[in-house]
Order: sequence, then C-alpha cells, then structure tokens
Amino acid sequence: MNAIAYAQANREQFLSELKEFLSIPSVSTQAEHKPDIRRAATWLRDKLLAAGFPQADVMATAGHPIVYAEWLDAGPTAPTVLIYGHYDVQPPDPLELWDTPPFKPTLVGDDLFCRGASDDKGQLYVHVKAAQAFKETAGRPPINLKCMFEGEEESGSPSLEPFIREHVDLLAADVGVISDTHILDKDTPSIVYALRGLAYVEVEVTGPDHDLHSGAYGGAVHNPINALCAMIASLQDENGHITIPGFYDQVRELEATEREELARAAPFDRQAWLQETGVKADWGEPDYTIVERTTARPTLDVNGIWGGYIQSGTKTVLPSKAFAKISMRLVPDQNPASITQLFQDHLAEIAPPTVTVEVRDLHGGEGAIVRRDSQAMKAASQAYAEAFGQDPLFVRGGGSIPVVATLQKVLGIETVLMGFGLPDDRLHAPNEKFHLPNFYKGIETAIHFMGELAQRR
Amino acid sequence: MNAIAYAQANREQFLSELKEFLSIPSVSTQAEHKPDIRRAATWLRDKLLAAGFPQADVMATAGHPIVYAEWLDAGPTAPTVLIYGHYDVQPPDPLELWDTPPFKPTLVGDDLFCRGASDDKGQLYVHVKAAQAFKETAGRPPINLKCMFEGEEESGSPSLEPFIREHVDLLAADVGVISDTHILDKDTPSIVYALRGLAYVEVEVTGPDHDLHSGAYGGAVHNPINALCAMIASLQDENGHITIPGFYDQVRELEATEREELARAAPFDRQAWLQETGVKADWGEPDYTIVERTTARPTLDVNGIWGGYIQSGTKTVLPSKAFAKISMRLVPDQNPASITQLFQDHLAEIAPPTVTVEVRDLHGGEGAIVRRDSQAMKAASQAYAEAFGQDPLFVRGGGSIPVVATLQKVLGIETVLMGFGLPDDRLHAPNEKFHLPNFYKGIETAIHFMGELAQRR
Repeated sequence: MNAIAYAQANREQFLSELKEFLSIPSVSTQAEHKPDIRRAATWLRDKLLAAGFPQADVMATAGHPIVYAEWLDAGPTAPTVLIYGHYDVQPPDPLELWDTPPFKPTLVGDDLFCRGASDDKGQLYVHVKAAQAFKETAGRPPINLKCMFEGEEESGSPSLEPFIREHVDLLAADVGVISDTHILDKDTPSIVYALRGLAYVEVEVTGPDHDLHSGAYGGAVHNPINALCAMIASLQDENGHITIPGFYDQVRELEATEREELARAAPFDRQAWLQETGVKADWGEPDYTIVERTTARPTLDVNGIWGGYIQSGTKTVLPSKAFAKISMRLVPDQNPASITQLFQDHLAEIAPPTVTVEVRDLHGGEGAIVRRDSQAMKAASQAYAEAFGQDPLFVRGGGSIPVVATLQKVLGIETVLMGFGLPDDRLHAPNEKFHLPNFYKGIETAIHFMGELAQRR
Repeated sequence: MNAIAYAQANREQFLSELKEFLSIPSVSTQAEHKPDIRRAATWLRDKLLAAGFPQADVMATAGHPIVYAEWLDAGPTAPTVLIYGHYDVQPPDPLELWDTPPFKPTLVGDDLFCRGASDDKGQLYVHVKAAQAFKETAGRPPINLKCMFEGEEESGSPSLEPFIREHVDLLAADVGVISDTHILDKDTPSIVYALRGLAYVEVEVTGPDHDLHSGAYGGAVHNPINALCAMIASLQDENGHITIPGFYDQVRELEATEREELARAAPFDRQAWLQETGVKADWGEPDYTIVERTTARPTLDVNGIWGGYIQSGTKTVLPSKAFAKISMRLVPDQNPASITQLFQDHLAEIAPPTVTVEVRDLHGGEGAIVRRDSQAMKAASQAYAEAFGQDPLFVRGGGSIPVVATLQKVLGIETVLMGFGLPDDRLHAPNEKFHLPNFYKGIETAIHFMGELAQRR
C-alpha cells in the first residue's frame, strides 16, 4: 500500500479527527477564549506526534503559543519544507446568522460547516495527514518537514515575526508551504502567486465629553457620528478610488502581459460571482476587472462602525463618541506602516476643529509576489495535476498572509501557496465550510508534492 | 398652615416617595421592562389617590397604560387644568459611564442622580405633591385638576393621541400644564413658549447577502458601511445645513424682533456652554446664534450607527448590512410626516445602484409655539416669581414634546410649559440628575400657580 492508498483508506478516521479539532473554539482575538487556544495547540501537538513527527512542541511566545514540529529523517541532501498554518479562528459573530452551531462541525452533503473549517484548520491538517500516510507506508516522508502552526493569525500575528527572527536556524528550509487560500472551483485547481497586504486601524471620534440630549444641543454641537461619516465618505470617490494623498505612490502597476495572462488563465464567470456575493452589481475602479480589483488593487473597507444608541426603539442622544474599524488591503510595494502613517496624517488634516480624532494602528502586513518557475512551484503544479486530474492555474489572491513576506525577508525563502479552499467557503462569515472532497484531495496533493519535490532535487 | 408651609414641612417625606418612584426601571423602549412600566403606573395611581384625588385609574391603551386622575371639587366655574407628564424613562445605556447605579437614586450634595430624575418623574411628581398640600391644608385644590401621565413618551407616544381623541370629553380643560423642560439656571426661572418637533427614522443598507471576507471581495463589492457613511455625509454641508431638497420649505423664519427679544431675555454664557457640553468649539449654521441653532432651527443628527465587527480586536469582514438611527429636529411649520417622506424620497434618489436602502419611519412629532399673553401664562409667570424670587424669562426649547401640538389640535387648548429641570441634568445620558431645590421650588410654584389661576378667573 502506498501513501495515496493509505490516505484513501483512512478518510473516515481523518474526518473524525478534523471534527475534533474544529470543535475547539480557538478564537484568538477574544480573551475569554485563551484556554481554548491553549487546548487547540496541545491537541495539534499530540496529533503531530501521533502522525510520526519525532518532535513536536507547544512553544511559548509573548502571545498565543506556536506549535512547532520537525521530521528530518530524509537526510541532509533531501529538500526541507517549512509548512505554515494557523490553528486560531475568527470570532463567530454574528451568531444569529449561522444555520448550524459555529463550533459544532456539521456535515451537509459534501460540505463540513464550522468556524475554521476552511480557514485554516482543515487546510493545515492536510499536511499532518500526508506525513502520517508516508509514515504508515514508507516509514517516513521522502523530504524533511518542519511545521510552524501559529495561534494569532486572525489577530495580526504579533508574535510570529519575533518568533521566526529568534529561531532562524531552527526554521531554516528550502521553501515554505502554506495552505490558506482557495482554488478557483472544486474541479479547477489553482496556485496563488501574489497576495495583498493589510493596514488595519481603529478611529475614535469624540465630540462632547458626555452623551447629550439631541433636542437641547442638536444644531450647535458637532455630532461625532456625523463627523465620522463625513471623514469616511471623503476617503474614497464613488468608485472606491482612495483619496488619501500619496496612497497609490508605491503601488506596483499591473503590466499588460500579466493582465492578459490573468484573463486567459481564469475566465471570469460574472453571473456566478453575483450569485456568490448576493450583490445587485459589482462596484469599484472601472479601469480594472473584478478579478484585478479584488487581487491586484488596494482597497479601503470599513469593517465595523458603532456609536450612540444601537438597540431597539429610539433614543434621541447626541453621543459623545463614534468608532470605526477600517482596513486597507495593500499591494506590492505598499508598506503597511507607511500607509498607516499616511492615514493618520490625513485624518489629522481633515478632522474638523469641533471634534477630536484618534487613529490607532491595530495591525499591518505586507503583500507579496512569488516566482512561478521555481522547482517547488513546478512540484506543486504537478501534485495538483495528479490529485485533481487537471493542471492548476496561476492566480493572484486578494487576502493577506503576511507570513509570506516575513519568510522571504527573514529566512530568505519563497513560499508555495497550496490552497484547497473554495471561493464560497464564507471565510470570516457565518456558515463557514470546507468542501470535504477538497480535504481528501488536499491530503493527496500534499503527498504528491512531497514525492515530486524529492525527485526534483 | 397653608399649602406652601405644608410643602416646606414635608420635604423629607416627598423626597422619600420620589426615590421610590425613581427606583422602578420603567424603560418604555425595551420589552423586558414591561412589568416595570406596569409597576410604575400602579405606584403612581396609588400616590394620586393618597394625595387626595377622588379618582385615579390605570387605563389600558394599545401600548403602555396611561394613568388618569381627576379632582373636580373646585366647581364648574373654576378653571380646569390638564396636567400631562410621563412616567417612562430612557434606557440607561451606556451603563459603564454611570458613576452611580442608574436606578438607585443617589443624593450627591443637592443633586439627586437617577435615570428619570429630571425627565420626567421628578417633574411630574411636583404637581401630585402640590395637590396634596392643598388637600392637607384647605381640603381641596382651588382649581379643578386632571392628570394624564403616559408611559410611552420616550418611545414616541404611539398610544397618546388615540387616547386623547377617544376621551375628548373626559380630558376637556381650559389649559394644559407640562413640567418636562428646564429653566435657564437654578436662580433664573424661565418658561418655554416654543418647542421643536421630531422626525425619527432608521436606515438599513444591504450590500452582499451575507458577510464576506474583505480580502476576497474588497474592491469589487460595495461595502454597505462605506455606502451608508457617504449617504449620511451628503445630507449636510460642513455647517450642518441640510441638503435634502425641500427640507427648509416650511420653516417659519425667526423674525428680527423675536431674535432681539431672545438675545435680551437670556444673555448667553458661551464659556459655561462649552464647559457644560465639553466640546472644543461650537458648530452649526453661522448665521444663527447657538441659542437659535438649538431651539429655532431644524437639525439632523445620527443618534446611533452600527454595522460589521464592533467588538475588541480586528476582523476583516466586508459586512452584509449597516444601520443608522437618524433624527431630525423640526421647527414650526415643518410637518414630521412630510419631512420623513422627503427623507425617504431623497435616500431612494441618492442610494447607489450597488446597495439596497430601506428607510423605516420610527416616529414623529410636531413642533409648537404658544401665546405668551394668556391668563395661564401670566399665572405661571407670577407663580415662578413667588417661588424663585425672580420673574421668569421667556425662551424657546430645543426638544420635542409632541403632546403640546396634540392638545392644541384635538382639545383646542394651549399649554404652559412649567419646567423645573436644569440645562446640565444630562437627560437621556449617563448620570442624569434632578436638582433637589428645584423639586421643592417646583412644588411651591405649582401651588402658587393653582392659587393665581383661581384668582384670575
């Protein structure tokens, strides 16, 4: 029995383990879930050991722990792959919109519904099971493996870069592998070669020093909600073009050849996209396609806003404060710290003299572009072709995986984004799911990748 | 012992009763407080009976009950006053900003802190105790009294006008009296002769039909929060002048003589106002004074806004929905229903094709102006002079007491706004309070008013 056959024969067992993993509500941004984060880390370490990794540890950081494991029995001439993933998940809010309990894995047809199913527990677990398949059939994987699974990805990975800088020798590898992206559709595998960065801020606007009655003061006191709305509205034109001075200065423009390649590689199904999002019409910069707007252009989205009375009924309050969480997706070569600074300077500039505005930097991450012609990319391409029966397409991704830039910068390695999610997995939203056949094909892809990479070296 | 002496001798007892009243969290806009509303109504009826009213009832409506009492022993030739007040209160949110528990009446110096202390339990109770003072010293009040205390003022009084229309004969009176406004300062009594109306709406903006990941869709999906902010921002220029077409068409402009009178009657203390509000600078229409802007000009305030992720930390969500509660203060002769319609039409007009916008009418009330030369106004003026040792000033109020317009329209009577609050009572805000000396002077003013009115007829 080879590794592929072993993986196919043990699907039921792998699924049952994944369900266990998903049941742990490891929400990294909420303090009350700290014990769950710890529990998820310990669970993962135990499974790595059980899969055959000779060494696996829960390593402390200033924040949530990093689970590190290595299996270096392929010898010094075999390539070494550093697999990154994250075992933390987004908060499940808004709870009332879930059709099934967010932390009770529920299989409906071929889809496994649970927070974290696709982002990222289901995807990272693929590699653990691939390694195990080699152990049970060949004694060890054909390449050297290092795993680094963090618990703070959904809160900006504050401890990850310090950890990597502190363990440069431990983490030394030839290439990084991350499964935290999606493929184009269940029958069309794809490899993401570019990612957007992120600058995330919180804005606090203060008007009066306490809540006032809008009857007694309305008309002469600047309402901080109105002021906040006016500032937010002024940050973009009606097509989403951002008006912060200097915002586009470092943007690496798409070249005509890449635009053509992108369009050729992945013909865009507009009807499917409208259905998938539920919007009446698309929106955004008219000079770019929807695919380009969501992957190769920077954006500004209000991720949350609140102020005043937000319960049922009415209250005629002129509130003291209003808040917004605002994030900007960045593209190479925009720098998150510089963009945050531009944002802060601009808000200080446009803040009316009648209110006080504070901008807090919540987190940032750089975008990245990786080479498409490396041995590892070729091995990955071949692995997808074998597992899915079709060559993968090369596409840009719209999300942010700052670790790609960090691995490049600190360890000097490129990363293969070996994703197995689907576009409608509802990441960060209610009813997140993972398409179960992708879980199984993902394990097979990871097995093929290890085999392919071993032969190419 | 006359009524004034009785009131002065029984202050401690009156205060203890007021504290009991304030302890009942009769929040009308929140369903969970329905039993408290009922409890407050029953408590008030019992106190009216105890004060000497021969009849007092908790009368059902489609919503919260109305407490009605009458005492008509002054005979058919004596004037009849209809006293209106409300026993419901605003929600106490935000709870964390209260220095004392919102429903535990707490005396600090001369100020009694509690939700509803000034708005309106403390003020309406003045009249109950004035009537009792006559009972204990003269057997009955010198005029006929009818009391109508509702429990829905803070949720737009939906049942009040139907109740009044249904009981026109029962409620027939010569003049209305309402104590639900404030005087200029504790030593400067004043009578409000004009009020603003209100049109209160809730706006719901829907973009995608479920929450999306801002990385995967940002740039091509119109974010409903950004869209809402842009619409709100476009409703006003930077001075608060409202840009909805037709909004000012029915505004009765202030005449030069009234502007002069207002300025002469109540010299405005800008420093005190800045201190009281805690703002860095005033704001609003530059052609009008602060007093005019807050009493004689219409406004538009966002009373609440929410959407997306509003807890601690970060979430890169592109939300499905965003909401705002928006109220417009109106002046004579703006009509709330027409203004709401204008608002709805305008939002339908400016809504971008990429989102769906719904505007719900939450409630409305008309503004009002009453004559300053009636017998009742003269009696009230004299009563304030005797209780406070100073003639009252005539001013406009910025808030909304829609019942004033209803009494005029349905019963054909004018209303005396006999307020005892202070500008810094923090109505609708944390740390609401009632200045206790005003409670006692209020009772004396009500006693003097009854006596004065009896003599003038």
